[in-house]
Order: sequence, then structure tokens, then C-alpha cells
Amino acid sequence: MRILITGGGGFLGQQVARGLLAPDRGGRGTHASSDVSEMILLDQAFSTTRLQDKRIKYVTGDILDRQLINSTFDAPIDAVFHLASVVSAGAEADFDLGMRVNIDGMRAVMDACRANSAPPRVVFTSSVAAFGGSLPEVVTDSTATTPQSSYGTQKVIGELLVNDYTRKGYIDGRCLRLPTIVVRPGKPNRAASGFMSSIIREPLKGEIAMCPVSAETRMWIASPECAVNSLLHAFDLPAEQWGSNRTLNAPGISVSVAEALDALRRIAGDEKSDLVRFVTDPAIEKIVYGWPVRFATSRGDALGFKRDKSIDDIIRSHISASNAC
Amino acid sequence: MRILITGGGGFLGQQVARGLLAPDRGGRGTHASSDVSEMILLDQAFSTTRLQDKRIKYVTGDILDRQLINSTFDAPIDAVFHLASVVSAGAEADFDLGMRVNIDGMRAVMDACRANSAPPRVVFTSSVAAFGGSLPEVVTDSTATTPQSSYGTQKVIGELLVNDYTRKGYIDGRCLRLPTIVVRPGKPNRAASGFMSSIIREPLKGEIAMCPVSAETRMWIASPECAVNSLLHAFDLPAEQWGSNRTLNAPGISVSVAEALDALRRIAGDEKSDLVRFVTDPAIEKIVYGWPVRFATSRGDALGFKRDKSIDDIIRSHISASNAC
Repeated sequence: MRILITGGGGFLGQQVARGLLAPDRGGRGTHASSDVSEMILLDQAFSTTRLQDKRIKYVTGDILDRQLINSTFDAPIDAVFHLASVVSAGAEADFDLGMRVNIDGMRAVMDACRANSAPPRVVFTSSVAAFGGSLPEVVTDSTATTPQSSYGTQKVIGELLVNDYTRKGYIDGRCLRLPTIVVRPGKPNRAASGFMSSIIREPLKGEIAMCPVSAETRMWIASPECAVNSLLHAFDLPAEQWGSNRTLNAPGISVSVAEALDALRRIAGDEKSDLVRFVTDPAIEKIVYGWPVRFATSRGDALGFKRDKSIDDIIRSHISASNAC
Repeated sequence: MRILITGGGGFLGQQVARGLLAPDRGGRGTHASSDVSEMILLDQAFSTTRLQDKRIKYVTGDILDRQLINSTFDAPIDAVFHLASVVSAGAEADFDLGMRVNIDGMRAVMDACRANSAPPRVVFTSSVAAFGGSLPEVVTDSTATTPQSSYGTQKVIGELLVNDYTRKGYIDGRCLRLPTIVVRPGKPNRAASGFMSSIIREPLKGEIAMCPVSAETRMWIASPECAVNSLLHAFDLPAEQWGSNRTLNAPGISVSVAEALDALRRIAGDEKSDLVRFVTDPAIEKIVYGWPVRFATSRGDALGFKRDKSIDDIIRSHISASNAC
């Protein structure tokens, strides 16, 4: 199997690649063979600590470079994880960049898939930013999308394209609206949701963290492991189980800043949790307050997607993963 | 006021232009002056029977010609009716054409609006094709969009863009999901919904009409007058009444083919209604059966949008309009 991962240098891209290459993956999945012969990781840049495997080919370039995208399809591609994206605060700050990468780049990938000899299986990462504004207390699978950010708007447009390309038989697409990923390792990125990781990650390293929203602020989250497992599960599920609706709200848990800090205090002590400073940022608040905080994910649950047990579990597994590195 | 109407050569474009130029429009609308100083009607072609008025400037060209679009904004534009579109069966038959006109063309217009000296008021025609598949019996204002055609997909993408451009302050947008317009005058077009007009229009002229779907097939419809009035009302409403959600299901009535033929029989007699032949077309059926047939339009009703009284009224007003021509 030949797989393309756009945004392959990013955190999720690297984790998905690792998951797909894991030796215990044999027998999982619904492809005739789950053996990966080649995996192309496309991104604008790659870290020096990137995953090493003889099956991986790193390609540096821009998602808007149609020639580059098409060249990765020189030999047939069996599957695509389209993860490349300008994140929420980035797309809000630079409208044109968001439109170019999140829509034009998306279309470049979709059109290359369509020109492929057979419809590839495509996993697309969407977001809870698909919802916003006046929302029901609990968002369900049939809640209308009402994005309140350019990022959310562009993600919903991506979902619509994946659904229509699938209906037309050009791809076998699957869109997952991922919760905010907490605890994201590494440095902060431009995502408006980044603080929820920062207020756990930085204190654990003995560093001060800024929280730009109030302690009552609630978020719908999933651990990195949970999010990656959801993406792999979205990939593994047979097309007939997806049916005609190829967009799904992935399971997560609803956690407030205060609950996260209480858990941090329980697990790592006062010394760590006291390192968080509240400094309001109205621009971040405006984006974050527009997001939904509770979901009923009946369809995802029925299809076998899993959620984390608790914020305590998420923090403990982040500590284990950090120590393992 | 300087107004641009894309698709200005089409049936709706001509009717909207006529409505905006009507002498009794003085005092309506929420602009400081509802006087039209210039009206640019853009389309690929215009009929010889087009509306004549010294304020109208007819521009022949392609919506994909960014230079042409931008040139219409040489002087500031106060309002845009973006009606240009590849219709349902057309977008289904030629996927690339639909994407180009309904998305790229739409974006060319939106970007020209954004570059305008002040955010123009933009009215965009969307469609009930935004909905499809497994639908609730009655579609409401909060039903999730699930288009089952490329046309529907592209229209929902247009809505999302209008909402985001409005949120960003680039335009003052308003999207109306119009019911199927019945009775559309003139020749059949490529819309999959065209038969509902044909089975009334052609028999009234003494011509045979083909019905590609069964008599039980139900459709959500509005008369041309009702649709045009809804577009003008969408335009007239103050921005604050629209609020942050700039997409609305326009009122209509639910009518089956059988009910339409019964009304035709009542009004025009057996001789006319017997001119309809049922010849199933699976491609049309597939598109039409995916559309919703009943709506509760609470928000539209509250905002003062009106519906037709009955299919009998619609047929009678079509007869009067035809006789007047």
C-alpha cells in the first residue's frame, strides 16, 4: 500500500505515520493488505527528530504546488491522510492564507485523488470549529454547522468536498471533526486552542504558562493517542459502515480550565499548578467561546470510536510519553 | 445606488432588475436612498427581449473572468445580487464546470466585493438542494445541511463563504435557500426540477409535456413573484435583523405532481391536463428524490417573508402573466 500524508511533518502527521507503520497493525484494517510499501510525508518543513523508516519518503514543498502534489501520484496512491492546514488563529489573522491552504490546497489534493487510477481512501481532519454561535447545550450528529471563524468555515467546506467527491466515486472519503488535542507536545502553535495544552505542558516542565481565557472556560478535548486512534479507526472502517454521510463528530471529553488545573494539582502538586497565570486575550477568547463544549457522539460511539477516560488519565499519559522521549 | 446582478440575463436576474427599478419601490428598503443610479447586468448572453432602461448596463462575459468582474467595481458598488450559477443537472453532468462557476466564480465576485471601498450588500441565491438524504419529515432552520448533489454542495459552500465574508466585515451578505420556482416561463433549462414547470406551462400552450418522476413526487415550490419578492425582501431587511446567521430557508408550499395536475385540470380542463406523459428518467429521479419537500420556515416567517397561497393561485397567476406578455 502506498500512502500520502499531507502535513506529514506535523505532530498528528508523525503520529499517524507511526501508527500505520506499527508492527502490530498486521491484520487490522480492511484493505487486502495492511502492509505499507511506501509512505510519502509531505510538508513545508520537517523536524530533525522526525520518524525514521525505510518506507518513508519525506517530500518538502507547498500544498499549493499542484505539480508537486500530482507528482506524488505518479504511481497509484491507495490512501491519503489530508492533515495539512492553516490552524484557527492563523486562518483568522491571514484570511487569504487560510483560503489558499485550507481550500485551494485541499482541492489540489482532491483533484489529484480523482485523477488516480482508483479512488483512494481519504481521511480528512475537520474540527469542532465547524460549530459555533447559538448552539444547543449538547451538539449531536444532526446539529447544523455554524462556524464562527474562517478556519471553521474552511474545514466545513473541506467536509462538503470530501462528501461530494465520495458520492461521485472519485474518492472513498472520511472526515473526522477532532476535539482539541490536549496535551499537545512540543512548542505552542498558532491554534487558538493551544493554551489548554500549555497550562499542563509548561508547568510540568517547571515553566510559567499563560492562560488567555477564564478558569470556567470549557473545551471538548481528546488526548493525542485518542485522536490518532480515531484517525486510524476512521481509516480502517469499511466504506459500507460509513454509508453516505462521510462526516463524523469524534468522541472526546468536556473539561474546564479549572478542572484541568485541579487534575494537574492532584497529579503534580501545588508547585506546578501555581505556575499558570491568567492574562486575558480577547482575540483568543472570541474564537474559543464560539466553540461547542459538549457533544453526544452516538454515531461515533456506535462505529467503535473511543474517548479518553478523564483529564487525569490524559495528564498521566502525557507525563509517561514525555519521560519516554 | 450602483447595483451588480450576476446572472442578470437569466429569468430571476431580469425579474429582480425589474423589481428594483419599479417606480413604487421608493421608500422601500433600508438604504439611505433606494434610487438606482446604475445597474450592471452581467451574463454570458442576453435575450433580445431583455428589460430596457437607461440605468441598465448590459455586460456580456464570463463570471470566471476576474478582470471583467473587477472592472465592474471600477466605481464603488453598493449592492450585488449573485444569481449566476450552473444549475442542478448541469453541475451533476459536468462536475468541473459546476466547481468553476459555482465556487471559483462565486469567489471572484466575493473578492471583488471585499476590495470595494465599502462592504456591499450581497444577496446570494442558495437552494433547497442544500438538504438531502435521510431528512427529518419537516426541515427546520436548524436542520444540518446534507447536500446529495454537486449543485447542492456548491451552494452550501457559497453560503458558508457569504457568512464568513460577512463576519469578517467584507460584505453584508444574505443567502436565501429558494424553493423550486414554478411556473418558470420560457423554455426548459437544465435544472432537474424543471419538469414541475413543464407539466403546467407546456399543456397550457397545448403542447405535450414529459414528467420524468411519479405522480406522488412532492416538491417545495414558490411562484416567480414569490421568489423575486423574497430576494428583494432579503435585500431590504436591515443587517441587524439578519443577525450573525446570514442563511435562511425561504417560505414555499409543498405540492405533489398529482396535486399540480389536479389544479391544472380544475383551472384549464381535461384537454390540457391530459397532455402530460409520464416517462421515468432515473437520473432526474435520483436528484429530485434527494430533495426535502416540507419545511417549517419559522425564522423566515418572523422576518416577514411570504409564501404563495396555493398551487391554484400559482397556475392562475402564470396564466395572467403569459396573457400579459
